[in-house]
Amino acid sequence: MLKKEFLQTGMAGYSFVNYTIDQTISIMNRVGISNLSVKDFHLPLNSSRQTIDEVLSMFSNGGIHVYTVGVIYMKTEGEVDRAFEYAKRVGVNMIVGVPGYDLLSYTEKKVKEYNIRIAIHNHGPEDKLYPGPKDVYDRISKMDSRVGLCLDIGHALRAGAKPEKAVTDYASRIFDLHIKDVTAAKADAKAIEVGRGAIDFPALIAALRKIQYKGLCSIEFEKDMKDALPGIAESAGYLRGVMS
Amino acid sequence: MLKKEFLQTGMAGYSFVNYTIDQTISIMNRVGISNLSVKDFHLPLNSSRQTIDEVLSMFSNGGIHVYTVGVIYMKTEGEVDRAFEYAKRVGVNMIVGVPGYDLLSYTEKKVKEYNIRIAIHNHGPEDKLYPGPKDVYDRISKMDSRVGLCLDIGHALRAGAKPEKAVTDYASRIFDLHIKDVTAAKADAKAIEVGRGAIDFPALIAALRKIQYKGLCSIEFEKDMKDALPGIAESAGYLRGVMS
Repeated sequence: MLKKEFLQTGMAGYSFVNYTIDQTISIMNRVGISNLSVKDFHLPLNSSRQTIDEVLSMFSNGGIHVYTVGVIYMKTEGEVDRAFEYAKRVGVNMIVGVPGYDLLSYTEKKVKEYNIRIAIHNHGPEDKLYPGPKDVYDRISKMDSRVGLCLDIGHALRAGAKPEKAVTDYASRIFDLHIKDVTAAKADAKAIEVGRGAIDFPALIAALRKIQYKGLCSIEFEKDMKDALPGIAESAGYLRGVMS
Repeated sequence: MLKKEFLQTGMAGYSFVNYTIDQTISIMNRVGISNLSVKDFHLPLNSSRQTIDEVLSMFSNGGIHVYTVGVIYMKTEGEVDRAFEYAKRVGVNMIVGVPGYDLLSYTEKKVKEYNIRIAIHNHGPEDKLYPGPKDVYDRISKMDSRVGLCLDIGHALRAGAKPEKAVTDYASRIFDLHIKDVTAAKADAKAIEVGRGAIDFPALIAALRKIQYKGLCSIEFEKDMKDALPGIAESAGYLRGVMS
């Protein structure tokens, strides 16, 4: 019985890399989050129709709504094709993905063909393609309006970009958010519970409110990944506290 | 490395009724809370000097500061005496306690004698002595300024008192807070994770800010008491999120 906030919360599937689907459902139920970006280790890209139905049923019966797929990395046109076919079969209208620079126009073509949005994910200073949100935005700003960003706020801060500024600057292209915190605004900062680190959450939430963000705030928890429940719970609590 | 908030957080010892001292320390460290109101099941009222030293050392070595004792129920003058002797030996300057009506003047005498404050705890509609904060305040408002309230916001709301109003109305006498949430503003409401229930935390925190509250906000978590860490973590996160 969580209060209705103006922002909806979710979980990025990678948080559950060490958990089964049942454990994932149990953790999400415990912390009161029902939207999931499903990751390939729970639902492989080459899944049969039957597997997709089974996995979606497991989540659905557990009260979890799969709202997107990803993060999916794409290095060839074939991998772009596969990602869009997969998204279509899973029944989502958005892919969180990372197509190479040379695949961006091809990806845009697929976006139009499938009417499925792509939210390109930034992965911090070590990422050769998209360290920060600007590295995505500058390459897609002239493209179809269904090509946008999954802003990973922790990786963004490590890459020198303030998340609240990115939200404002790239407002119309922010489709999804990976919510986390990092120990400092430095390249080698570590993951930490939301609210304990360097990200200015009140500023971020204010920016999201201002742009009337319609997407989800999906927590991606990357500390204590084999004993993640307490950290996810604290992060969810903090996020909802700031939203309130 | 938690950010410094204007309000300090703590834990009410009763949250750990099913946990050993070591487990209590471990949970508090995990959620980043270092102040504890120690309860008698961890440190009995009749403890020897040696036991007190041992228990305080365990907490101290675990990074936990014992800031008060209680809740301690007092039904006779002997029990009041014992509570003040205990507090003195533990080395705290405040007792969270419940002296009967007929013991209030005697308790006030002890407050003056020991220079140890008493924070009287309200325990909801079932409490024959102090259901809500008004039941405490009306009986102590003319007493020594070191006689005050430990406002239990969940029990207060169940007893029909809005915590944010109590904070404002009884400002100078609010010495300690038991922070929790309840499913509804009704007598039979149940404990729930902070932020999921009926208490208006933004209003409460605003009221505390306004009165420049100098005490602690101690979480008392009374749901899932044998598997409390996730709920305590979520509650701590939410509280810090609202404070931020």
